[in-house]
Parts: sequence; C-alpha cells; structure tokens
Amino acid sequence: MRSVYLDNNATTRVDPEVVQAMLPFFTDQFANPSSSHSFGASASAAIMTARKRLQALIGAEFEHEIVFTSGGTESDNAAILSALEIMPDRTQIVTSAVEHPAVLTLCAHLERTRGIKVHRIPVDRHGRLDLRTYRAALTPHVALVSIMWANNETGAIFPVADLAKLAKEVGAFFHTDAVQAVGKLPMDLKSSAIDMLSLSGHKLHGPKGIGALWVKRGVRFDPMIKGGHQERDRRAGTENTAGIVGLGKAAELASSFMKEENGRVRSLRDRLERGLLQRIPDAFVTGDKQKRLPNTSNIAFDQVDGDGLLLLLDRYGIACSSGSACTSQSPQPSHVLTAMNIPDISSHGVIRFSLSRDNCEEDIDRVLDVLPGIVGSLRDGSSFKPTPAKRRRPLAFMKPTETDGNTS
Amino acid sequence: MRSVYLDNNATTRVDPEVVQAMLPFFTDQFANPSSSHSFGASASAAIMTARKRLQALIGAEFEHEIVFTSGGTESDNAAILSALEIMPDRTQIVTSAVEHPAVLTLCAHLERTRGIKVHRIPVDRHGRLDLRTYRAALTPHVALVSIMWANNETGAIFPVADLAKLAKEVGAFFHTDAVQAVGKLPMDLKSSAIDMLSLSGHKLHGPKGIGALWVKRGVRFDPMIKGGHQERDRRAGTENTAGIVGLGKAAELASSFMKEENGRVRSLRDRLERGLLQRIPDAFVTGDKQKRLPNTSNIAFDQVDGDGLLLLLDRYGIACSSGSACTSQSPQPSHVLTAMNIPDISSHGVIRFSLSRDNCEEDIDRVLDVLPGIVGSLRDGSSFKPTPAKRRRPLAFMKPTETDGNTS
Repeated sequence: MRSVYLDNNATTRVDPEVVQAMLPFFTDQFANPSSSHSFGASASAAIMTARKRLQALIGAEFEHEIVFTSGGTESDNAAILSALEIMPDRTQIVTSAVEHPAVLTLCAHLERTRGIKVHRIPVDRHGRLDLRTYRAALTPHVALVSIMWANNETGAIFPVADLAKLAKEVGAFFHTDAVQAVGKLPMDLKSSAIDMLSLSGHKLHGPKGIGALWVKRGVRFDPMIKGGHQERDRRAGTENTAGIVGLGKAAELASSFMKEENGRVRSLRDRLERGLLQRIPDAFVTGDKQKRLPNTSNIAFDQVDGDGLLLLLDRYGIACSSGSACTSQSPQPSHVLTAMNIPDISSHGVIRFSLSRDNCEEDIDRVLDVLPGIVGSLRDGSSFKPTPAKRRRPLAFMKPTETDGNTS
Repeated sequence: MRSVYLDNNATTRVDPEVVQAMLPFFTDQFANPSSSHSFGASASAAIMTARKRLQALIGAEFEHEIVFTSGGTESDNAAILSALEIMPDRTQIVTSAVEHPAVLTLCAHLERTRGIKVHRIPVDRHGRLDLRTYRAALTPHVALVSIMWANNETGAIFPVADLAKLAKEVGAFFHTDAVQAVGKLPMDLKSSAIDMLSLSGHKLHGPKGIGALWVKRGVRFDPMIKGGHQERDRRAGTENTAGIVGLGKAAELASSFMKEENGRVRSLRDRLERGLLQRIPDAFVTGDKQKRLPNTSNIAFDQVDGDGLLLLLDRYGIACSSGSACTSQSPQPSHVLTAMNIPDISSHGVIRFSLSRDNCEEDIDRVLDVLPGIVGSLRDGSSFKPTPAKRRRPLAFMKPTETDGNTS
C-alpha cells in the first residue's frame, strides 16, 4: 500500500536534489565559512549562491537583506524583539488572532512580563481580517505589526502588501510570517512596504533547522542571538552551511515549480475537496475559499471526532492533521477556528489536507475511497475495520510526550 | 598534495557515519516529529535515540535534560537570558574575560541596555582563572555564573566543577560553555553542581546548525525562542530531525573515540608542538600546557605577522587559524591573549593548531616541513615562494565580507 502524505503544511519531504546539493558540505567543503583560509572561502561562496537563489524566490532587491536563521519560529521571534529594541518608546504590537504560536506565544509573554499592549485583530467566519479594527489599532504607539501572509490551518491569504502600507503611515515596522506562503505564492518584496519576512526551509522541500528572516535594506535591526559577526552582525553562530545550501537549492526548485506545478497542485486539491463534499454530507470547507493557498483544504465534518478521523486515516497510511478542533492532549479547539467563530464548530471533526508537488492523482483517489466510509462508520457508531494491508511504516499512534509540540 | 586541516576548533568534518545516519530523515522519515500520525512518530522515536546518545556522552542523569538548539551560540544566549528571567531580583553576571563572543557580546549588551553588572574574571599569563577575584564576585546579587569548560584559543581547561560548587553557595545558576570540551573530555554531569551546559554538533564531527543546552532536572528554565511546545516547552520550532539524529550519532562515535583516540590525538599534537619549538627559535606555547585540551596548541612566533603565516600556510594547503593577534579586518589582538597579558605579544604572530581524530602523522610532518621556512622568510623579509603544487581546492584568500564572523 502506498503511503499518502497530505500534511505538507506541517513539513515537506526534502527534495532529493536538495539532499544532493547539501552532501558535499558535510564531508568535503566542511570548513567554517567564516574561516579566513581557502577551505572556509569555498563554503562561504556556496552560502552566497544560496542567498541569491532565495533572493530570487522572494523578489528581494538585495541578497544581503536575507539573514539565515534556524527556522520560522526563530525568525518570527527575532523580528518582534528587534522592533521593540529599536523603538523602545513604542510599547504596542498589532497582530492577528490567528497567527502561528511563534508569534502569539512571544506576544503573550511580552504582554505579561514587559507590559507590551498586544492588539490581536479578529477575523470573520471566513478567516478574513477585520480591517476596521486593524486600522483603529494603528497608532504611533505601535512598534510592530506582525500579520501572517497565509494561515497554516485554513490557507487563507491576508492582504499583507496593503496592510503594510497602512502600518507605514504610523511609522510602525511591518513583519509577516510567510512560512506557509514562500514557495507557494509569487512574491516581489522589493516593491512592497513590508519590512521583514520570515520563512522556513522545511515548508518548501528544504531541510529542517534552517530558515531566514528577510530584513529590507535600511530597516534597523537588533539581533536576537548575539555573539560572533556572522550574517553581518544580525545572527550570531557558525553558519549552517549545508542547511543554507539546501534552502538555496529548495528556493531554486520552488521558483521553477511554482510556475509549472501550482496549477497541478491546485487542481488536485480542488478535486479532493469537491470529491469529499460530494461524497460526505454535512461537511464544509472552513476559511476563505478564494483567497487561499493552492495546496490547502481545511474541512469540517459534522458529528465526528477529529482525532478518530486522523487515527483511522493513519491506519490506511494517510497522513494529514487535525485543523484542529481538539487533540487528545489538549481538548481545546484550534485557536484559528475559535477565532473564526464558526457556528457549532465544536461538534465537528476538522481535517487539514495540505498537498505539495509530491502528490498525485492516486493520492487523491485513495482519500476519496476511504474517507467517506470512515466518516460514515464514526457517525453511525459502527465499528470501523480498515482492511489489513502492507504498510510502509510501523503503526505508532502514541507518540512520546517529549515532542508534544505545535506542528504549524 | 594532500590538504592538511588543523582548524578543528573552528569546525570539524562531519563523520561519514553521521551523514549516513542523517540521510533517511531528509527524504524518507521526513515527517514532523510533533505530528500525531505514525509518519511523525517514527521521526520522534529517532530523536529519543539521539537524546540518549548525547546523554551518555555527557553523563547526564536524564535524557530529557537535553534541549536541542541550533548550536552553541543559541545555547549560551538561552542559558544567560533564562537565568535573568528566572531570578529578576538578581542583576549581576559573573563570567571570564576569555569567554566566547556568544557569552561576552550578550553580556555587554545586557550591561548597556538592562543595567546588568557583569564581572569579567581575569586570567593570568597561563590563561588560568583568578580564583580570588572569582570568589569575591560571588554574592547573592549574582543570577548566573557562565565560565567556559575549555578555551577555544589556548585549549586551557577551567575547573568548572569546583567553580560551580562555589556559585551554588550564593544561590547563583552555573552555566558552562562546553562547546570545545564535549567529545574531547570525559564528563559526568550527574554528579556535578553545574546547572546548564552548552554544546555544539559541528565541533564533534556532527553537522552545523545543531547543538544542545543541557539543563539539569529541577533547574528552572525560561525559553529564549518561544512558540510551539517542542522540547518540553523549552525551545520552540520544528525539531531539526536530521540534525538531531546526526548529533546523536556524533555523540555515540565521540564516546567510543574518546577512549581510543584521545591519546593518539594528544601525541600528534605534542609531536607538532615539540617539533615546531625545536625548529623555530623565539616561539612559545600560550596558555596552560598541563590543563589543556588534548587537541589544541596555540603557538606565538616572535617577529612575524600572523596573517602572513596563515596565508602562506594556506598556499601549502594547510588550514589553521590565527589565535589571533590581529586579523586583516580588525587589527585588534585576540581578546583571549590580551586578557592573558603576555609580555610583548603584539610583536608575535599567533597560530592555533587544533587537531581531531581525522589527522595523521603525515599532517604533522607536512607542517614541520614547511612552517619553519615560512617563519624564516617572513622574519628575514625574503620573498617566500611556495613550491607550486596541485591543490585540492581553489585559492581564495579574499573571502566575501558577508561571512566576516567569529569562528570560535
């Protein structure tokens, strides 16, 4: 039985070409890129190439605007803390109610420990930002606006270019967590009012443990991680050469795939969505169906338990995630769905299907084959017995508690 | 011509076994370890194995005391900031004058922006900590002591176990930057008074971009990077599965090599040192020759320019680093050598040779063959013409300014 991986917003498979690009930097060109000998210079040159590839993907004006970090969470934290450090007289942050925990957890901490006022702009039932509240929150007290480019659960796209223009009017920095958008949507940062942008390698078929914060030239920046002079004094620590090279290669591949493959991924997603809604009654798509990532579909199924759905899908070798209503560890509904105020959402099991260029028709067929039966059996309380089949991986539903973390 | 890499304190070659261990986690077991499906569980189990291997290497009591980070600099920063966050009433830090920039740069920033008083304990001419000043600095105002286990330039080993006991007497946290010590010195943390320890994968033949902060059970900790619940809420961000697995494998290899190979590395180092001092007049080893890492030799050569030495060694395919007297970018002598107050050090070119298990007799012979001639030619002003030879890598002495960073 072929495994079907539809959890690409959590993480993606590293492209084999990316792995090939990384390999020489482990055992051959392994020197410290900051070393002055020629061994180091060769690693340093590879980093420059990666920087340029990433620059091209996001449409940045200068390659040195890119600061390599350990990932999206670090980038988000660094952007927020920098803004407060640079503008100490401004004590407010504007963000949305549906941001990633990398933004919301830090904001809550700053509110609690440093008296920062945090405006969490609400969204409507379709996950769209309340623009009136947004405008009202923008005052000269605001140091930073941090609004995601696209939501990880629903795929809803926010009008960040417009939001950034408004933020500039009050002199606030504008940061966007674009972890889910980079590599899926075309970008032209050089002509936008955005000041800082976070991205993550493993969301675009690059390795985990590498990401970047793009900081527009001229935007003052104070580093979160302090030490050596790497990354032009904006991020200390020995450069993760292999990871950076991998991210660069992933960016190059994403640039070409975006033109060729986004349409294909979108039509697979649409076929999955249409097929499920046709076959399963009392189900609906959450979030803005139009302004949405081409790869994401978040579907609510009435009168079923989301965890039960995921578990049974997993037995069929289908990986997706709860979008999330509740999880076995924490019985709270997802903060995104809660913020959307969808009537009666707590009676629904919500599944996020997130595709990538690795998916094919066969994957969609498989889900359309099995999910209606799973939902039916959960609804009528009949014991659902998946047909036994050869599996590529062992079953292990009980994961160690140590990794009970958010997965975006 | 065989390249000779003697800059292992800057970074090490990733062991091919480490690369092999990492590979499946890029393209096969690539799922997010925090995902609840079985794809995720398999990645999560691999992380647990790595945690146990690292636990064994450092002699920690519990594997969950290990918090994976992006490297030594992040670990150092996180330890320092956590202590101040946990004990807000204590506003002093005790550290040494010869710490890595990952500690000193953050301390200087905290001094400047948050009114933290920083005690930088001096060292003597042999790089040994001034214990009287250390004791005097320890008061109940001290939140944290951060003293490195071994110095990256001279290899001098500090008596961290004893220093930690003294710190506990005033209720301060004790952190040690053990980036240069882990994998080179046996450790038994469970029976020490140390609270937190930083380590880095790429210093022990693991990959770059991964490290850990060991936080003893019971030691309160506030995370620097905030977001999801990864690493038991102590370090947010998707786990770098491949990097963690690589660090785990590197730890396992280091555990066995430490018994078998440290003696060999030490005798290579001693042969190099003895040979150079015999062949080159007016040269001496800096730092404590007894309490010293087995792989490190930092040698000062009178009346030569350190950069000239490095450049000419590089032409012979020999990579080592300035220890550092001065560099072309910044004409300041190394803060470590400055702190040691070695008479007349500014007239010396200082070279750090740092070995690893990858080195062999032939490497040492090569340095003994060429360095005396290089020093001689620099001293008598004769133009030094290295014999042309096939090189494994292109020459590139002018590195891009973007990576003008510290390299430990």
